[in-house]
Amino acid sequence: MNENNSTAVLLLSCPDRIGLISRISHFVFERGGNILDLDEHVDGDYFFVRVAWNMKNFSIPELEIAEAFQPLAKEFNAKWKINFTEKNLRLAVFVSKYDHCLQEILWRQRMGEFNIEIPLIISNHEDLKPLADQYGIPYFVFQITEENKFEQEKKEIALLKENKVDSIVLARYMQLLSLNFVDEYPNQIINIHHSFLPAFVGSHPYRQAYERGVKIIGATSHYVTRALDDGPIIEQDIIRVSHKDTVNDLVRKGRDLERLILARAIYFHAQHRILVHGKKTVIFE
Amino acid sequence: MNENNSTAVLLLSCPDRIGLISRISHFVFERGGNILDLDEHVDGDYFFVRVAWNMKNFSIPELEIAEAFQPLAKEFNAKWKINFTEKNLRLAVFVSKYDHCLQEILWRQRMGEFNIEIPLIISNHEDLKPLADQYGIPYFVFQITEENKFEQEKKEIALLKENKVDSIVLARYMQLLSLNFVDEYPNQIINIHHSFLPAFVGSHPYRQAYERGVKIIGATSHYVTRALDDGPIIEQDIIRVSHKDTVNDLVRKGRDLERLILARAIYFHAQHRILVHGKKTVIFE
Amino acid sequence: MNENNSTAVLLLSCPDRIGLISRISHFVFERGGNILDLDEHVDGDYFFVRVAWNMKNFSIPELEIAEAFQPLAKEFNAKWKINFTEKNLRLAVFVSKYDHCLQEILWRQRMGEFNIEIPLIISNHEDLKPLADQYGIPYFVFQITEENKFEQEKKEIALLKENKVDSIVLARYMQLLSLNFVDEYPNQIINIHHSFLPAFVGSHPYRQAYERGVKIIGATSHYVTRALDDGPIIEQDIIRVSHKDTVNDLVRKGRDLERLILARAIYFHAQHRILVHGKKTVIFE
Amino acid sequence: MNENNSTAVLLLSCPDRIGLISRISHFVFERGGNILDLDEHVDGDYFFVRVAWNMKNFSIPELEIAEAFQPLAKEFNAKWKINFTEKNLRLAVFVSKYDHCLQEILWRQRMGEFNIEIPLIISNHEDLKPLADQYGIPYFVFQITEENKFEQEKKEIALLKENKVDSIVLARYMQLLSLNFVDEYPNQIINIHHSFLPAFVGSHPYRQAYERGVKIIGATSHYVTRALDDGPIIEQDIIRVSHKDTVNDLVRKGRDLERLILARAIYFHAQHRILVHGKKTVIFE
Repeated sequence: MNENNSTAVLLLSCPDRIGLISRISHFVFERGGNILDLDEHVDGDYFFVRVAWNMKNFSIPELEIAEAFQPLAKEFNAKWKINFTEKNLRLAVFVSKYDHCLQEILWRQRMGEFNIEIPLIISNHEDLKPLADQYGIPYFVFQITEENKFEQEKKEIALLKENKVDSIVLARYMQLLSLNFVDEYPNQIINIHHSFLPAFVGSHPYRQAYERGVKIIGATSHYVTRALDDGPIIEQDIIRVSHKDTVNDLVRKGRDLERLILARAIYFHAQHRILVHGKKTVIFE
Repeated sequence: MNENNSTAVLLLSCPDRIGLISRISHFVFERGGNILDLDEHVDGDYFFVRVAWNMKNFSIPELEIAEAFQPLAKEFNAKWKINFTEKNLRLAVFVSKYDHCLQEILWRQRMGEFNIEIPLIISNHEDLKPLADQYGIPYFVFQITEENKFEQEKKEIALLKENKVDSIVLARYMQLLSLNFVDEYPNQIINIHHSFLPAFVGSHPYRQAYERGVKIIGATSHYVTRALDDGPIIEQDIIRVSHKDTVNDLVRKGRDLERLILARAIYFHAQHRILVHGKKTVIFE
Repeated sequence: MNENNSTAVLLLSCPDRIGLISRISHFVFERGGNILDLDEHVDGDYFFVRVAWNMKNFSIPELEIAEAFQPLAKEFNAKWKINFTEKNLRLAVFVSKYDHCLQEILWRQRMGEFNIEIPLIISNHEDLKPLADQYGIPYFVFQITEENKFEQEKKEIALLKENKVDSIVLARYMQLLSLNFVDEYPNQIINIHHSFLPAFVGSHPYRQAYERGVKIIGATSHYVTRALDDGPIIEQDIIRVSHKDTVNDLVRKGRDLERLILARAIYFHAQHRILVHGKKTVIFE
Repeated sequence: MNENNSTAVLLLSCPDRIGLISRISHFVFERGGNILDLDEHVDGDYFFVRVAWNMKNFSIPELEIAEAFQPLAKEFNAKWKINFTEKNLRLAVFVSKYDHCLQEILWRQRMGEFNIEIPLIISNHEDLKPLADQYGIPYFVFQITEENKFEQEKKEIALLKENKVDSIVLARYMQLLSLNFVDEYPNQIINIHHSFLPAFVGSHPYRQAYERGVKIIGATSHYVTRALDDGPIIEQDIIRVSHKDTVNDLVRKGRDLERLILARAIYFHAQHRILVHGKKTVIFE
């Protein structure tokens, strides 16, 4: 029997059928787990669920849960994963020269808002090393050119593996990752795009928004997929602008959006609140 | 076995203990019900749940479900109720002279946004009878004075009972209900107050907001309790104002808030998405 | 000298130069006008201004103001117009089958929120005639086919001219106007598009939004130009959605956006608060 | 004639009368100033204006403008002040132990978002000295007890005068300033209160909000006056909460509000966009 105070979090999706909640909750109940939070969603004929339970008094240890749950999951033909709040996700942050998103992440991390580890920061520039130093986090520079991209990414991936990194946050990282890199971390790379997607895809959204004369600008956090700015959306929000705002004002106002929305996306991801289904996300807030 | 396509909705709250979800979902499962939606919440040591399941193929008829569920509820020491989407709530709307909230309710009702019946409208003035007529809803006038209030409310209550009214919506009704009336419909009377409660309790919130120089005004929908503007809050929202806005502008802007927020509160209430616990609500959105 | 209580509103734009405000305000001052509101904007080297003054005690009558102001405007090489609040804009509303935007406009009009006249409603369907009748507004049906479009629009334009219509509101009118029609009313046709432009141009934005998995939907009111959904944006706003929302939920939530945003656009337009410059608007809120 | 590129900003309020804008803009025009921005407001019979003009080519130097403008201001019986964008306001920041507001201010200051100087930070605790050090700003600690408050504040005021401080920002400073201190800086002390004033005055607003079961929490930035949390409101905003949020969640969500709203208030203040009139502010956005 466990003595710890960890929480187990099951994320599961499968074709819908009768009895899913009953059987999953029974699995927890019969082993002595108290369900703290259960949220489910049915989209047409597909079923999604997040169940969190207290591991105190649970009759089997963390390491054996997956094996015990396996037969049920197989019967349901489910995609699933069980995480434990005791074991934080390990996130690497990729940056270039803008500091606002990194500032926000490091500050929130120190405030204890995320349950994550940040073993390293990777950049294609030296600029933000002093900020990383303030927080005592190793900072690695990999300069990227068209010629060396393949080689540099290979080294980055090796470094990430070595550091047992689970997920990657692109905190205004100004390089496109290769398809090869993206494939290494499916639904584990979180990007912040500085527009209200699908409006203004690409690299100059504030300029485009200014020229179109919109009355609202937005930002979008999404998982990175092979198609540019087209991955499953995690979070979006907007801020009002007016004819008085220059492109620089949009950039200034947009910075606040970018860092807050990216922080919310990391929060959901780190708490195992996101299921990806096709091109969309289910967020159990 | 049922052939209908109705959905059953259980709302239940009780002291938290292990196995609640497992046993409730098992109750549904073993009778052939497919859970469409389950949302739960634990607040300290109290448990709240909303479970919706399809009645098609359910092994016992609607009328026998309460009896079948009773033993479980008793063991859990629960407050609970099961509603069926086939049987709409019956709401009476109380109004005075302002038409915006009534317009909104009747229009949404006709659009099919609410699953409710509106068997009658009660007012202390004749003014909104033409609007009620447009929608073909009986309109009753009970003029209220200090002297006749007790007698008039008795007649109103009789009329409500006769019409099998479940809940009451105060759509900018400008009379205070007596404690006696309030006690007849605990957590079944929905009010809209034209401020961001608890700021600006009482009858001139826009005037007060103007004089305080706030930059935002709000509106609040809540259940009516014995204390003025102090009942459990269902929904709130706000709109920005500026130094350019006169009291009349606040009234104009506030009207939009009032009708939208009241509509959202009715929507949650009619879909059985609200549990009241002490002075607060749990809203399963 | 005028005895009336009307307000004059000058909207003017011209190349920026020194002394513009001084000379315009002096024009008002030396004729005895008290400026109630002045708002200006400089965008690079172009100047925009809205000046409202009280006509009481103004030394020349309304009819002579344009002539008196002409020399100044000519010197500034300005585009300009003076309106009087006494004389309401005359708006025709075009509708098809959806009633929510028309409801909203007619209700606000009766509440006195707009200073407009609505001499007629035009539709390609009979459906909303009863609503027009409730408000006592003439309702004309012009069925549109590919073959008769040119002829029908000619009749519509004749009817609009006959009724001295200044501007047109497309309140979810489901027909594209021909370029010929659009050219008759430059920057005088207000449309509501049910997406956050420039995202989701075209006729199925809610479906597209659902499929993309956005977390926010929007609506946009804009002036109609020759290019589809590409005219100067007047107002935009958004509402949050989640994975729980079906396409029908987006439609339902979107209706609230559409009618509120269209109403705000009409409000700005009717109060002569909008200047169009190229593809963008300056809104003097 | 001036060669510099500074902008002059006049803030003026006086009883309303005919010709104010004409005469003020003429004052600028006849000295060769190009008005960049003019915003005015009339509230009943009181007049408020903000005029910004380019000092390039202005015929008199900065130091002589006040004297030149004095006769006009006297005739209008006006309260007024002219600032120059070349000369930044000097703000002192007061803090206790929470770092989020100070972080936000220092980061935005370094990004160039504010046009201010921060010559010093004052605290009643040592905790935030390392943060001040990172930005190279002198940090002074004055421990406050009931007994020494009068003496310590005298020293603080002396230090502020010595550093030519114009305004003070209370960035979650947890001590009440004495009336004596407040009187030294009328409408120059900006506070952030962690509730939607006038709701939840005092020191535990998140606790109160939690217990009342509100669906929205807010924050308010205001000028400090002699009455607690009752000064003229500069800016307010809100964030949604739900039954799932604990008091700690309200604190976490509220932090984001507090720092963003305080930053907006400083932005308006530093750009000379605020006029105080009685208990209210006019904000020329």
